[in-house]
Amino acid sequence: MDELEKLRGEIREVTTEIMKYVKKRMEIAKQIGEIKREKGLDVVDEKTEEELRKSIMQLCSQIDLETDVGIRLLNVLINESERVQLKRKTPTAIFTKAKKLERQGKKIIHLEVGEPDFVPSTAVKDTLTNVIENGYYHYTEPRGVPKFRQALVQSLNKKFNTSVKEEQVIVTVGGRFAVFLAISSLVKLGDEIVVIEPYWPAFRECAELVNGKLRVLHTTLEDKWVPDISKLENMINKNTRMLIINYPNNPTGKILDKKILEKIVGIANDNKVIIMSDEVYSDYSFNKFTSLHDYDYDNKIIISSFSKGPAMTGFRVGYAVSNTDIISKMVKLQAVALTSVAEPMQYAALSALENNKLKENVEIMKKRLSLISKRLKKIPVSFVEPEGAMYFFPRVELKGFNADQFTEKVLEQGLALTPGSGFGNYPNFLRISAGQPENVIEEGLDILQRSLK
Amino acid sequence: MDELEKLRGEIREVTTEIMKYVKKRMEIAKQIGEIKREKGLDVVDEKTEEELRKSIMQLCSQIDLETDVGIRLLNVLINESERVQLKRKTPTAIFTKAKKLERQGKKIIHLEVGEPDFVPSTAVKDTLTNVIENGYYHYTEPRGVPKFRQALVQSLNKKFNTSVKEEQVIVTVGGRFAVFLAISSLVKLGDEIVVIEPYWPAFRECAELVNGKLRVLHTTLEDKWVPDISKLENMINKNTRMLIINYPNNPTGKILDKKILEKIVGIANDNKVIIMSDEVYSDYSFNKFTSLHDYDYDNKIIISSFSKGPAMTGFRVGYAVSNTDIISKMVKLQAVALTSVAEPMQYAALSALENNKLKENVEIMKKRLSLISKRLKKIPVSFVEPEGAMYFFPRVELKGFNADQFTEKVLEQGLALTPGSGFGNYPNFLRISAGQPENVIEEGLDILQRSLK
Repeated sequence: MDELEKLRGEIREVTTEIMKYVKKRMEIAKQIGEIKREKGLDVVDEKTEEELRKSIMQLCSQIDLETDVGIRLLNVLINESERVQLKRKTPTAIFTKAKKLERQGKKIIHLEVGEPDFVPSTAVKDTLTNVIENGYYHYTEPRGVPKFRQALVQSLNKKFNTSVKEEQVIVTVGGRFAVFLAISSLVKLGDEIVVIEPYWPAFRECAELVNGKLRVLHTTLEDKWVPDISKLENMINKNTRMLIINYPNNPTGKILDKKILEKIVGIANDNKVIIMSDEVYSDYSFNKFTSLHDYDYDNKIIISSFSKGPAMTGFRVGYAVSNTDIISKMVKLQAVALTSVAEPMQYAALSALENNKLKENVEIMKKRLSLISKRLKKIPVSFVEPEGAMYFFPRVELKGFNADQFTEKVLEQGLALTPGSGFGNYPNFLRISAGQPENVIEEGLDILQRSLK
Repeated sequence: MDELEKLRGEIREVTTEIMKYVKKRMEIAKQIGEIKREKGLDVVDEKTEEELRKSIMQLCSQIDLETDVGIRLLNVLINESERVQLKRKTPTAIFTKAKKLERQGKKIIHLEVGEPDFVPSTAVKDTLTNVIENGYYHYTEPRGVPKFRQALVQSLNKKFNTSVKEEQVIVTVGGRFAVFLAISSLVKLGDEIVVIEPYWPAFRECAELVNGKLRVLHTTLEDKWVPDISKLENMINKNTRMLIINYPNNPTGKILDKKILEKIVGIANDNKVIIMSDEVYSDYSFNKFTSLHDYDYDNKIIISSFSKGPAMTGFRVGYAVSNTDIISKMVKLQAVALTSVAEPMQYAALSALENNKLKENVEIMKKRLSLISKRLKKIPVSFVEPEGAMYFFPRVELKGFNADQFTEKVLEQGLALTPGSGFGNYPNFLRISAGQPENVIEEGLDILQRSLK
């Protein structure tokens, strides 16, 4: 036992040295933070971080420390340093504020929320009516009711001419929880995720929850929202665990060109990185959309839901398709977090799958988007025409325009919009949703037009 | 900019030193692991860890490093060391295996799952039938439908003679997701959670997801499952964020004596630690149960659900009550993870709240437990009579008995039971659920009795 005691003493000494250096590191980070503040520089400095990461990787191989352990700890240290330097601004919860105003009796036009106003098919009503008689109100297998998963697989295989198996599907609480499960079950402390900006804020929030490191590839209106592939390639390293794409894109409506998608898949393949493709808007594609289902790449996760095309937001049913290993991990976490999706909701979604009104919904959405486009051309904004999804993401061309302040102001006037800051570094952009009928949209855009004068 | 460059160079040097020491630390940890394996010692050594933690805390104040940063990093280092030493055994997913066997046509008696077999009240059917007409199928506020939260608050205030406000409640996807939200939104990297063993495995799994450190207070059948309060007190330090209690307990059925509960609340109060009280089984209390609602302690989270008393497992509706600050954090995370609980399910739970069949369900449960008690006295097991909940947690008094192997074996014979290892270090315990009708329970216990001969 003496030897054990001796080793424990050594552990204590080594840990002490580590802490002393950590203290030093925090001090230097603070000084750097102060200089950056003086000079008006951004606290997060992707380039410098990357250089440090590379030099630590070299060190790891020199001193024979597992690289993933080294980089994981480095990312923890970087996050600690950033924490002392910055407090990130969270996007305003416009939806919750709007609901509150409504409860106070104010009329609000909801062009902020991604919720189509269509009514589910009558088959859904029948299913709900018979839930109790059919006994559909128990815990289900965490991955979802087998009958529903079988129907999903059949429908996917028919649509994409693939051979997805039942074990490759998990039914989740909306597409959102599929994203959450994928990130939380696959990304560990200090792992990196690459995402293309503008992006849905849930990606960052999920990454932060598991202490992952989100790395952001910015795209611009000028580049028509096309990502720079060589920059993307440079961001990948040994600790990159996942690359997230989302087309048709929320908020821009962009659909990626097939050639660019192919390059992204190639980069993922070369670096053994998981691609997560959030395709919840694929039903609303007005130009040719290429799904990740079309690629024979094993290390992929495709996410979709019943919220957008079938317009069943409030039922909270989504799903992910991946290889069996990834699906097992997601199933395990879903079991931990909430056991399973509510059984009545799974059967409701099944009946919507068998009796869908998709064509009808897509036609209406298309008309609404063309209405918004016409109207936006009359006000001081720049935008790229959406090729899919249900949003416009225009930049307001007024000097000093700040979307955070503006959305607060127009909310008081009865119009709810999402500010661009919710999707990344886009302080003068707005997201406008086409989830409402044409007359409501017109009314909302009237308010917008007046407010931008 | 020269100064910035200089400081960045220093950061690089300091980081290099840290990594070198980390490497040393991993090497020593590996040696310790080998010695422990030779001597058959447990890898996780709460006492030694605690000594190290105390000495690092002293160091932090000497070198003026924030203690929480120091301990957080220490816990990361400890977890890394453990990772190289041990692979934790995950409890067998008996439920999923059982469902699979059933699909293959095998008859399985489900005494493993905590799901009462009662039918929801007829009001629930009516609500489901009218979901579409009423338009109850949209995103709701992340914290839940206001009308439902108001009804919950009214019912709680009446029952416990309290004055809980609407802003103090969040509606969640079952009690499970309330637990998940509480831990994930409040416990950060390296924070500590104290839990009393045997415990529901979700507590550990949630803690691990956010890289928290779970610290376990073991209790025994001999002590009638009463926790040692002085030991508990010793486990609390500056990084302890949360203390979890669960009474009536799953799996033991224990209800804590009021005096002991008071001491626990006192310890939490002295150390500014959050108490999370999982009270999902409180409807099934056969001795006097004291809820945390009865204590005027602000830093508490009380979790309950519609799964057990109202027997609505498959609807996945639960809730948490806490102070407004904690509830806001949980709401924010629920919004990130899944937007909101399915609206139809919230209205179904509301109608169950207004038309409940609790008394009836509780009476039946009581009779079933007394039946199981009688039967267990005839076989070679020791147990404490449950005072609440819906389980027995007996120890099998046969030499060399291993519950993991045994539950696999009896599953083949058509009986599903949960092994004690699912709840902590109880390799020769079984959990038996009273969720089935008496004749089914009898049949299951027949199989158990035969198999223990």
